[in-house]
Amino acid sequence: MELWDFENLADGRAPRVVLGVDGGSTSTLCVCVNANSSKESPKVIGRAVAGCSNRNSVGDELANAALELALAGALKNAGVPRSSVQAVCVGISGVDTRDDEERMLSWLRQLFPRTSHIFAYNDAVAALASGTLGKLHGCVLVVGTGTIAYGFTSDGRKTRCSGYGPLLGDQGSGFAIASQALASVTRAHDGRGPPTALSGAILKHLHLKHVDDLISWAYTDSSWARVAALVPVVKACAAAGDFAAQEALNFAVQELSLSVNSVVTRLGLAGEDGKKPFPLVLVGGVLEKNDSFDLVSAIVHCVCASFPGVEAIRPQVEPAVGAALLALRQSSVATCNGDMSAAEV
Amino acid sequence: MELWDFENLADGRAPRVVLGVDGGSTSTLCVCVNANSSKESPKVIGRAVAGCSNRNSVGDELANAALELALAGALKNAGVPRSSVQAVCVGISGVDTRDDEERMLSWLRQLFPRTSHIFAYNDAVAALASGTLGKLHGCVLVVGTGTIAYGFTSDGRKTRCSGYGPLLGDQGSGFAIASQALASVTRAHDGRGPPTALSGAILKHLHLKHVDDLISWAYTDSSWARVAALVPVVKACAAAGDFAAQEALNFAVQELSLSVNSVVTRLGLAGEDGKKPFPLVLVGGVLEKNDSFDLVSAIVHCVCASFPGVEAIRPQVEPAVGAALLALRQSSVATCNGDMSAAEV
Repeated sequence: MELWDFENLADGRAPRVVLGVDGGSTSTLCVCVNANSSKESPKVIGRAVAGCSNRNSVGDELANAALELALAGALKNAGVPRSSVQAVCVGISGVDTRDDEERMLSWLRQLFPRTSHIFAYNDAVAALASGTLGKLHGCVLVVGTGTIAYGFTSDGRKTRCSGYGPLLGDQGSGFAIASQALASVTRAHDGRGPPTALSGAILKHLHLKHVDDLISWAYTDSSWARVAALVPVVKACAAAGDFAAQEALNFAVQELSLSVNSVVTRLGLAGEDGKKPFPLVLVGGVLEKNDSFDLVSAIVHCVCASFPGVEAIRPQVEPAVGAALLALRQSSVATCNGDMSAAEV
Repeated sequence: MELWDFENLADGRAPRVVLGVDGGSTSTLCVCVNANSSKESPKVIGRAVAGCSNRNSVGDELANAALELALAGALKNAGVPRSSVQAVCVGISGVDTRDDEERMLSWLRQLFPRTSHIFAYNDAVAALASGTLGKLHGCVLVVGTGTIAYGFTSDGRKTRCSGYGPLLGDQGSGFAIASQALASVTRAHDGRGPPTALSGAILKHLHLKHVDDLISWAYTDSSWARVAALVPVVKACAAAGDFAAQEALNFAVQELSLSVNSVVTRLGLAGEDGKKPFPLVLVGGVLEKNDSFDLVSAIVHCVCASFPGVEAIRPQVEPAVGAALLALRQSSVATCNGDMSAAEV
């Protein structure tokens, strides 16, 4: 059965829906939300997961194939044909420039010829929307394998900071934290640096016997996510008092706060006096709450020193639902104001 | 025609030879040297180049295939069959542990069943030998895409420092220098750091218009060598007075000196008072002499502060010839002392 064949069987009385997508290098999630549900409690009636939709990782063809699979899957799951889709919002990593947005929008318009409200953003925007329930205002800090800070003003200006990936210096990212920890281990092993509890802890975690074994571990599959997955070990060592681990995390806190401050400053989110309240949405695996080291509190503390109006938010819904709420809100706004493309917002 | 078929046609009066190999992730060079030539002017009578022989990059099978291609090619080129090979010495990146050495030796012994002197080392050892004309004594510092410091004492002890590759913190490597420079560019672009001349220079060098274009440049082909190839741009900016470029290179100088000092200290190469002369062989693309920034002088200056007996050597022959000279010297020593395997030296 072909991808969209289910539409022939779809119920003619299908509800109006919006689609939200959170796409990245690991996976792509699409949710189908009833367009009549409230922003506070969005009603997800279909969802589907597909593979990597970051074109920088797998190229345009595979990325778009994964995206189409997720979109079709969520609609099929909900029993809703494309003709009932009121709006689509995709947040995808690798959509970085205006050109990237335009390419994505043009591809989506072909896939949804009858949907007038289509929006394409970086996945950080979906994460922001998950904290603000679809409103494009404030700053989001995403810290997973990579890191990015993204901000929007109520009048439609936007800016971003970091998000360049490990090769271009994503300081503060999960990869950077773990990478600095691994460097401390090799330094200690060589006698180029002081001993650190990270050595024993990381080797134990990876079931390796010797520091030299790290070489074949690292280069058998040199994915950045695999390196970043060591962050919980770094946090545990830091909590137990290890200096090198604390140093890696404190450096990350400084760098991440710097990213947020740069976005807030450039957009004037905190007003002229720097004291105006603004939302700061904090998301990503590295920022997840755990007992050993609370990165979020440390970052908010740092940002607060410059911008006391900062209102930290840990989202209660997934980024994909954030994207759907954004689609819902933007399509209502667009319908009220006449048609607007995402690029003009 | 099969790889070794040429042996059927080889001259029965072929000279005795030794084979030297310098193998890495980019390519593998094998030279065939007349065993009667002097160490000061080795007579290369055959040579051949093959692809990557680093098992960490391409796996055992492809790595060994490349190595066999280079070995057979150099012998065929010289018109010499395997029965005339007195000794073989391979220096290959990715041969890091005792296990790696043993695996490589066992494979080579099957390929050269009639050759009693076979040696397998990390490629840094071939580089050392290229500066010491085959003598295993002193320290070598290799700085290319990655970096490693390796040392041997006259009585056969050895140690290494760094050489873990970019994922495990090869501070001072070409990759690390360029990576730090790229991070300065993104920091400046974001307003997270001061402006730097590196921004314009790197974009111009890569024929890119905008800092955001670096993202697709970096992840279209994320090979570490491609990043490291930016080092000459960093040197030029440093020479022109750019602070961020100077900072990246000065940090590298410190880290590389630290690697050398660690090897020298651990082996006691400079004697108890730290003043005994010892050779320091300096090789690799990043250390190549050019007009803009003399990294070698800066490193030697740093090492000299701790170990005034350091004797800096820039090799006059290739690492593969160094490996051949090492094979020649070790096989003479071994013949005098009874048979010794490389692992026991």
